[in-house]
Amino acid sequence: MKKKIAILFAGLVGIPTISHAQANTELEAVISSVDMIWVMLAAFLVFFMHAGFAMVETGFTRSKNALNILMKNMMTISIASVLFFVLGYGIMFGASAEGLFGADGFFLIGKESDIGFFIFQAVFAATCATIISGAVAERMKLGAYLLLTVLITGFIYPVVGHWVWGGGWLSELGFVDFAGSTVVHLTGALGALVTVLFLGPRIGKYTNGRVNVIPGHNIPLGALGVFILWFGWFGFNGGSTLAADPTLVPQVIVATLLSASTAVIAAALYSQLKFKRIDASLTLNGALAGLVGITAGCANVSPIGAIIIGAVAGLILVEAVQFFDRVVKVDDPVGAIAVHGICGIWGTLAIGFFSVEGGLFYGDGLSLLGIQTAGVLAVIVWTMGTTALSLFLITRFTSIRVSREEEIAGLDFSEHGSAAYESSRSIFNENYPEVNADFGVGLLHRLDSIKPSSRETKST
Amino acid sequence: MKKKIAILFAGLVGIPTISHAQANTELEAVISSVDMIWVMLAAFLVFFMHAGFAMVETGFTRSKNALNILMKNMMTISIASVLFFVLGYGIMFGASAEGLFGADGFFLIGKESDIGFFIFQAVFAATCATIISGAVAERMKLGAYLLLTVLITGFIYPVVGHWVWGGGWLSELGFVDFAGSTVVHLTGALGALVTVLFLGPRIGKYTNGRVNVIPGHNIPLGALGVFILWFGWFGFNGGSTLAADPTLVPQVIVATLLSASTAVIAAALYSQLKFKRIDASLTLNGALAGLVGITAGCANVSPIGAIIIGAVAGLILVEAVQFFDRVVKVDDPVGAIAVHGICGIWGTLAIGFFSVEGGLFYGDGLSLLGIQTAGVLAVIVWTMGTTALSLFLITRFTSIRVSREEEIAGLDFSEHGSAAYESSRSIFNENYPEVNADFGVGLLHRLDSIKPSSRETKST
Amino acid sequence: MKKKIAILFAGLVGIPTISHAQANTELEAVISSVDMIWVMLAAFLVFFMHAGFAMVETGFTRSKNALNILMKNMMTISIASVLFFVLGYGIMFGASAEGLFGADGFFLIGKESDIGFFIFQAVFAATCATIISGAVAERMKLGAYLLLTVLITGFIYPVVGHWVWGGGWLSELGFVDFAGSTVVHLTGALGALVTVLFLGPRIGKYTNGRVNVIPGHNIPLGALGVFILWFGWFGFNGGSTLAADPTLVPQVIVATLLSASTAVIAAALYSQLKFKRIDASLTLNGALAGLVGITAGCANVSPIGAIIIGAVAGLILVEAVQFFDRVVKVDDPVGAIAVHGICGIWGTLAIGFFSVEGGLFYGDGLSLLGIQTAGVLAVIVWTMGTTALSLFLITRFTSIRVSREEEIAGLDFSEHGSAAYESSRSIFNENYPEVNADFGVGLLHRLDSIKPSSRETKST
Repeated sequence: MKKKIAILFAGLVGIPTISHAQANTELEAVISSVDMIWVMLAAFLVFFMHAGFAMVETGFTRSKNALNILMKNMMTISIASVLFFVLGYGIMFGASAEGLFGADGFFLIGKESDIGFFIFQAVFAATCATIISGAVAERMKLGAYLLLTVLITGFIYPVVGHWVWGGGWLSELGFVDFAGSTVVHLTGALGALVTVLFLGPRIGKYTNGRVNVIPGHNIPLGALGVFILWFGWFGFNGGSTLAADPTLVPQVIVATLLSASTAVIAAALYSQLKFKRIDASLTLNGALAGLVGITAGCANVSPIGAIIIGAVAGLILVEAVQFFDRVVKVDDPVGAIAVHGICGIWGTLAIGFFSVEGGLFYGDGLSLLGIQTAGVLAVIVWTMGTTALSLFLITRFTSIRVSREEEIAGLDFSEHGSAAYESSRSIFNENYPEVNADFGVGLLHRLDSIKPSSRETKST
Repeated sequence: MKKKIAILFAGLVGIPTISHAQANTELEAVISSVDMIWVMLAAFLVFFMHAGFAMVETGFTRSKNALNILMKNMMTISIASVLFFVLGYGIMFGASAEGLFGADGFFLIGKESDIGFFIFQAVFAATCATIISGAVAERMKLGAYLLLTVLITGFIYPVVGHWVWGGGWLSELGFVDFAGSTVVHLTGALGALVTVLFLGPRIGKYTNGRVNVIPGHNIPLGALGVFILWFGWFGFNGGSTLAADPTLVPQVIVATLLSASTAVIAAALYSQLKFKRIDASLTLNGALAGLVGITAGCANVSPIGAIIIGAVAGLILVEAVQFFDRVVKVDDPVGAIAVHGICGIWGTLAIGFFSVEGGLFYGDGLSLLGIQTAGVLAVIVWTMGTTALSLFLITRFTSIRVSREEEIAGLDFSEHGSAAYESSRSIFNENYPEVNADFGVGLLHRLDSIKPSSRETKST
Repeated sequence: MKKKIAILFAGLVGIPTISHAQANTELEAVISSVDMIWVMLAAFLVFFMHAGFAMVETGFTRSKNALNILMKNMMTISIASVLFFVLGYGIMFGASAEGLFGADGFFLIGKESDIGFFIFQAVFAATCATIISGAVAERMKLGAYLLLTVLITGFIYPVVGHWVWGGGWLSELGFVDFAGSTVVHLTGALGALVTVLFLGPRIGKYTNGRVNVIPGHNIPLGALGVFILWFGWFGFNGGSTLAADPTLVPQVIVATLLSASTAVIAAALYSQLKFKRIDASLTLNGALAGLVGITAGCANVSPIGAIIIGAVAGLILVEAVQFFDRVVKVDDPVGAIAVHGICGIWGTLAIGFFSVEGGLFYGDGLSLLGIQTAGVLAVIVWTMGTTALSLFLITRFTSIRVSREEEIAGLDFSEHGSAAYESSRSIFNENYPEVNADFGVGLLHRLDSIKPSSRETKST
């Protein structure tokens, strides 16, 4: 009887991975180890990008919403990892149903030898979803955001991934997207765009025909986030070789480094030209633009090609941010749609020009460019369509936006009953003279008005 | 004569490592290189966890003690590295004396071929000690804390490590703790618990039968710390394979990723259920709970097993924090005892259930669970006993707690004669009108009342 | 015709790398992969050091200049990467002209198989330049700083690098500098020193014969930066082996760990002795001192030797900071000249004592010490000479220092038309009652007085 229960439970809890490589030679075993190290290192770096996203988004929005941003980012990587295990990996890399989506490998069943690859792909998937968190910041209900994350990582993103990396129809068409300018970044940005259109702009963003700047509360934190993202991107692009290829990997890395660098310079110089100052926000986002822009082609372009792609990305970024903010009046607190969407499209199309295998500038005509364009359009239709449909259905039942009072109070208070920082000293000292009496050093202190007892009486 | 002095000095300063692998074949040399990369990468990641601890502890405590927290963390990794070289490594991995502790290898003498392993173990040891720094924050004398760090890293921790990883009696019993749920995390938490019992709660924490929340001053910094810890934990668990095993490593990593992710979700949902809101502090600590919880079994459990372990860890965490804070009234500013102690015990016992080699759910009965329990109890007795004895002896000579005035003023002022942030502008501008006159942009400025000349006259 | 255009363009945009290793055996291919992973990992870590520099400099200076510091650091890595590709790598590693500088390899032409090595060297070069950004903080014109960065990374630094690592005359002399105590750190510090002498001290630093402390605005951020630098330094020193040598790498890493650790302890204890308190700034900089101090000799000294080098570095650091700040009255906001210059010299000379191959303490007399000294002097002459000449020429045309009003207002406002943080609530709420009305939680808000329209009318 005990054994029967054990077998039943073993069936439930699963059996860990069998031997990764039935290596007939010792050398193959070593090669397995080497490739595993590379993919694991890359996965760790991509994971760390979530710290980068969290810091960028926190720094570029207001402090009264900081806890909410942090929760969205922490929940996104967590939900995505589990959901990708349960559902997303199978859809993305399972046996292809008509080249449209995968249909096996759920719970990694039958895929026990691909665990390393799964890990890398899981943190990738989370990256796509978390792009949305910045764009919808400061006014979206946390629950609605998390539901959208489930849909993105469980279904919408894996389908796109299947088309391009899972053996689906786009890859069969010849579409090239090495590390995900379209699969990850454009997809995320499109989800963000649709959600922002449903949400509407933040209170106070557009008043009396004016476009107001709502500045971030901590740009150094935002800058740290950009540096972390750039650091992690070496794994994002580098790991996409899926093997420690001593020729390809340096090529991918140098393209990444040069594109990001040139984009920073281009954005800085362009903002100097346009606004008579080097704008910190635009310059920092310039780095991200260059990174998104090279993500598609880093394995296929030369160093000079990477420099050109980065420079254009930096210029595009400045215009795109202005475009969404002031022309189309789509309120995107961190410029995510411009960075990941417009530069994602640029990075994807740039392959049609700069790829040494098929690019226009290498004498191979327009056909690759045409394929790239087709892929971009397909992803736009799919992602905007499914996201819009999802939000339409969700909004039949509940609002995805917080109330006016909650938005003005700040989501930290309304969603989390707390605050991210110590508050003004005078308010607190009245309540807790002992705890925070200070001694000549003026510091801020927190107003702790949220105790469990009083919380039950507040209407939620 | 010159040569004699040289030989004498060479004897003093030591001779660097001899050849790591007397490789008879080139392939073995390559395997050495590959394993070395993996262990070094892991060691770097574990080192970086100290930045994570520093940020978590700083963010979750008050700004008037921020410098003190930073100093404790910086000094811990520094002292631990040197002390582990001098003493700790020998006790932990030296030739075993009756299975109780090692007795050679001090100063790495005779262990020159183990330098890579030493590095990894040294940053591990520091991790155990630094767990204490968060729990004792805001009222412990720096000198007393550093003395305790010396005892922990030089003796108390290495003995536990010897029992489990150095060939000592617990490993011979069949006790399993792959990366240290007990060896590192429970040990550190027990040291923290005993010290906190000696210290007493912070002023203002428990007043008139009430349990007051003393909120952290910078939760974004704390969240950054959690992300860094999670990132580093991939090295903490992954490196414990000590080799670039292409089957085992991904298994360890996926267990780590899934456990942490599920714990975040569990803690978030449970806090939503209990407190009607997703609590940021509990959710962030949820990640750490899941990480601690999987540290013992990440090499022995399936992905589903890891998910269950993480979910339980997240739930336990919420209850444990409340338990220590409100029931037992042990003031632990960052919840370290709950995270590293209770979840450390859970992670260790969970092996008795979920290990594919010997776990209850795999049909192997209760014996492994019994062994795990025995190990936990032994470590509890040893660590609490030695820590209590140490503190008892120390407190015969000096107080380990700062004075009431120092605690209220903040340890930054009393221990370090400084402050972590710019203070209120008005106070400073009176003294330095030129230096900090601002021009329409309101910013905080520091009160520089601590000049060397005036410091000598202040009583210390 | 199309083909002709394509060939022309291909010539312009370049052809990506050819096969890295014409490996006759599979084993050699694996060795290539392994070494590539190591160098790439190291390069990523060195890249991440730029986040560390940015955080250290931001934390240790005033908030009104935070954006400017971030821009300097972001632009430095970006400019350096591109410039090193265009010019610097060729000068540093090209075919040697009389052992003085390299003369080919520009745009990596002919060096396509060295891309991995290039990447590692590029992020190194940026490190040297960015040392200057801390010392010149808070009063240097951004444009002048960027121009200096171009000169440093494009010419001044590569020449030094050529002398020592590119096969130039210093290496032929027998000069040893494994990872750059002189090549990177001393060179950067000398550039900083000369620039600071041209710039002059910050307003308010020296008044009425008094030396005023101008404290940093966010020491926790500075501490995070130190941890990041230490983390990255494992790649800085470790990657300088250029191969995954399983004997040498652990030796390098343990020397790095022990030196930094001992330097922290030494700086802390020495500041306790001298100032009756453990000074946070000095202790944090102690870590950097120990890291700079071991950078030259980490491959050549024993663990005990590393400990002694670190201890001396920590002591030297405390004295050197005081020396520049109070005796010579050279205003260096972050102590960069003391850390990277004085400790860089120490680290370089220490080889003459502690190197197991040729050091005085190993019975080989004073000749290595003499060679080390000669190298240090040569670099001092070269770097100070060229930097002084450059600045002399630049200052014929423009001031390198901002105006008095700009300095007092803060460079964030004057150079970037923005601010790093939310400003005082009262000022902002008057203008934007809706956007930032808060609800019992007192937080700071930003004064957004810088809109593009009003900017044009302000005199710049």
